[in-house]
Amino acid sequence: MSLKSLRTHYAAEVNPAAEDGKSITLAGWVHEIRDLGGICFVVLRDRTGRAQITLVKKKTEPELLEIAKRQVRESVITVTGIVKAEPKAPNGYEIIPTSIALVNESTSPLPMDTTGKVDAELDTRLDNRFIDLRRAEGTAVFLIRSQVLKSIREFFYENKFMETATPKIVAAATEGGTDLFPIQYFDREAFLNQSPQLFKQMLMSSGFDRVFEIGPIFRAEEHDTRKHLNEATSIDVEMSFADHEDVMELLEKLIARVYEDVLKNCEKSLEILGVDLKVPKLPFYKYAYEEVLSIINNEIPEIETKMKFGDDIGTQAEHLFGEYVFQKTGESHYFITAWPTKTKPFYAMPNAVRPEISNSFDMMHRTMELSSGAQRAHLYDILCSQIQAKGLNVDSFEFYLKPFLFGMPPHSGFGVGCERLVMTMLGLDNVREAVLFPRDRKRLSP
Amino acid sequence: MSLKSLRTHYAAEVNPAAEDGKSITLAGWVHEIRDLGGICFVVLRDRTGRAQITLVKKKTEPELLEIAKRQVRESVITVTGIVKAEPKAPNGYEIIPTSIALVNESTSPLPMDTTGKVDAELDTRLDNRFIDLRRAEGTAVFLIRSQVLKSIREFFYENKFMETATPKIVAAATEGGTDLFPIQYFDREAFLNQSPQLFKQMLMSSGFDRVFEIGPIFRAEEHDTRKHLNEATSIDVEMSFADHEDVMELLEKLIARVYEDVLKNCEKSLEILGVDLKVPKLPFYKYAYEEVLSIINNEIPEIETKMKFGDDIGTQAEHLFGEYVFQKTGESHYFITAWPTKTKPFYAMPNAVRPEISNSFDMMHRTMELSSGAQRAHLYDILCSQIQAKGLNVDSFEFYLKPFLFGMPPHSGFGVGCERLVMTMLGLDNVREAVLFPRDRKRLSP
Repeated sequence: MSLKSLRTHYAAEVNPAAEDGKSITLAGWVHEIRDLGGICFVVLRDRTGRAQITLVKKKTEPELLEIAKRQVRESVITVTGIVKAEPKAPNGYEIIPTSIALVNESTSPLPMDTTGKVDAELDTRLDNRFIDLRRAEGTAVFLIRSQVLKSIREFFYENKFMETATPKIVAAATEGGTDLFPIQYFDREAFLNQSPQLFKQMLMSSGFDRVFEIGPIFRAEEHDTRKHLNEATSIDVEMSFADHEDVMELLEKLIARVYEDVLKNCEKSLEILGVDLKVPKLPFYKYAYEEVLSIINNEIPEIETKMKFGDDIGTQAEHLFGEYVFQKTGESHYFITAWPTKTKPFYAMPNAVRPEISNSFDMMHRTMELSSGAQRAHLYDILCSQIQAKGLNVDSFEFYLKPFLFGMPPHSGFGVGCERLVMTMLGLDNVREAVLFPRDRKRLSP
Repeated sequence: MSLKSLRTHYAAEVNPAAEDGKSITLAGWVHEIRDLGGICFVVLRDRTGRAQITLVKKKTEPELLEIAKRQVRESVITVTGIVKAEPKAPNGYEIIPTSIALVNESTSPLPMDTTGKVDAELDTRLDNRFIDLRRAEGTAVFLIRSQVLKSIREFFYENKFMETATPKIVAAATEGGTDLFPIQYFDREAFLNQSPQLFKQMLMSSGFDRVFEIGPIFRAEEHDTRKHLNEATSIDVEMSFADHEDVMELLEKLIARVYEDVLKNCEKSLEILGVDLKVPKLPFYKYAYEEVLSIINNEIPEIETKMKFGDDIGTQAEHLFGEYVFQKTGESHYFITAWPTKTKPFYAMPNAVRPEISNSFDMMHRTMELSSGAQRAHLYDILCSQIQAKGLNVDSFEFYLKPFLFGMPPHSGFGVGCERLVMTMLGLDNVREAVLFPRDRKRLSP
């Protein structure tokens, strides 16, 4: 017997009008039991939502009533019964059961509350992630994350991108030797890759033309903030015969598309999370780095130390500038362009007219950076001198540099942090809320 | 000026009839130059194919002819010119150029031939992967791989699966302590995950119900064969309220769907590879393990040592049995079911009637195993005793076992090796052909 018979419908899939009077079978968790004397309610929960099982004492077989009352919260059950439209019940119907069967019993007490009535600390929640994710809000975040990735891929396929996968185990660091996790690779030392950067660029030399990769990246940064992870999901893109302006246009369209799709397809999850999503307006506003400096120095008095060319824009300035843009434009997303060449990685293309600035950009959300990108240096000599200028050894990049000698087209690209995209979209307090099983300085389990 | 002006069309996108007489711009690599005296052909190559640029000496500006002749193979160029339908040329047209511009020059000699006229050893090709992938066959494999993954995801979305991502850095081994790559994770030892197995099962307890994950897995096996990789892409699936029969049905439908989509959407790539794809017939044939043993022992004389219950089916037997099935049925794909419990991991569900066999399966291709799956042990006590029976320590699986105490539904799942799927589909000799930058015992670069 196939286990499919344990369920004919998900809770939210039942159409109260069309299915009124029909027999259906639901499977899920005992969310709640309310015994009001003359009537007993069992609330069953599945991924889609809840269903109310109603047992009126006088009309129910005593044995069935006994089974219902015996259930403990969070046990897995399967219930067969007749659908009855009931506007006051969840999803607009109740079930008058003909059978209730225990599938797998839960132990008591639970390690954590699942009703959302008791607030738990994030650490407690992550320690018990399997049960934390049963909260409607937990499921909602990951249904939306799944939709985000689906939209991103559809967007790229429509724009003729190929999906690629590049190695996570590498011999050399993408951007120099810091912040790497070392691995014992048989008898050699290797590292976990920080980014597909070098590989996606090599594929431009192969003529793959437009590639995207969505996969894990690993950074051994000792940060302990609400927006950093040591293992994250990166959305990486590279495109030939395109400059930074071209990929900025691609990126802003991508973001708008993802917002539109989530708005269209995740109505219920957004409602559970209380998120009122607004699709960003195109094109995004662009501020050159030097313009940002001038605004910060002249119009944002909270920043006391004047900034000068070459300074990084720190967290406080980033926040205040994001607020400034939002107040001026009503938009949360914008670009900071034309960063000083020395603040960007060696693979960014210096501007032809003013080589001290680069053809680079960051795509910002009001509250944090979401993406970083650039036209890449595709000329061998420029690239070598930029590697040296960063104090890195050209020899250790031989595998990467060789393709630049044999027909490398001009190309540009960017990377977007998937978790930050979901975090800012949903207004989550902590990036860990956007990862099933986060990895940070202190957390390696579950 | 946007670099988009370097190209208006891909080579294979030009419609010779509709665009005859129009001016277009192509960008790509100099595939070949043939100077026949009175006429000179430059063959330009991009991801989609080739285009012939025709320069008739008497009708061409001497300067333009000079530029054309000066090009070296594999340089990147952009060509603007008039389309002229020409049935004998690649893609049915030629370009009469009005301008040819060098974008980035290639060095000579090339580290490897790109025309496919000279056969190179696999090692040489992988050492120069960036240029190896320029061969039409190289690009074709990865265009198909991209389509395979696109189809797989579409299939899962249509079947109400959520996409998930689970950690690659883990504290404990999935199936015990062997074959793991150790990582230095700050001040602790950690490992690269061998499989999302334990995490996807935990998500069943969270009520995620149907999940899939496509991502890297890492195995420190010392194999050096044509079908093993140390870093591979795994397609992992888990489904609640489903048994092994249910997920076998899902899996065979998935495989058929992928074949259908590739056949429909990758016609040109299949032609380049000379692959005559046949969609597998549903349902796949199923052979119980004991039936396989009996056939091997009685009908396949090449295997001299008689096999007995509990023996693993080795490579030779696997091949000969695959051949046997193919001869009998004409099909390359089939299932071996009901494996001895002791040959399968601890998380496989023992059969209720005969606990010495498990509710497990392998999905086979004529030439090798493609997938392994099972109904999972969802009852805490059975799971603990199976962990102990494998000589493993229950305590080190605490994070995994806890969810089984608090409402774990029955569930089943499988994993498919993406590279083997592509390899068997395209009849590739070596699994490394299906990976951009393979990682094996000896290879860590590029």
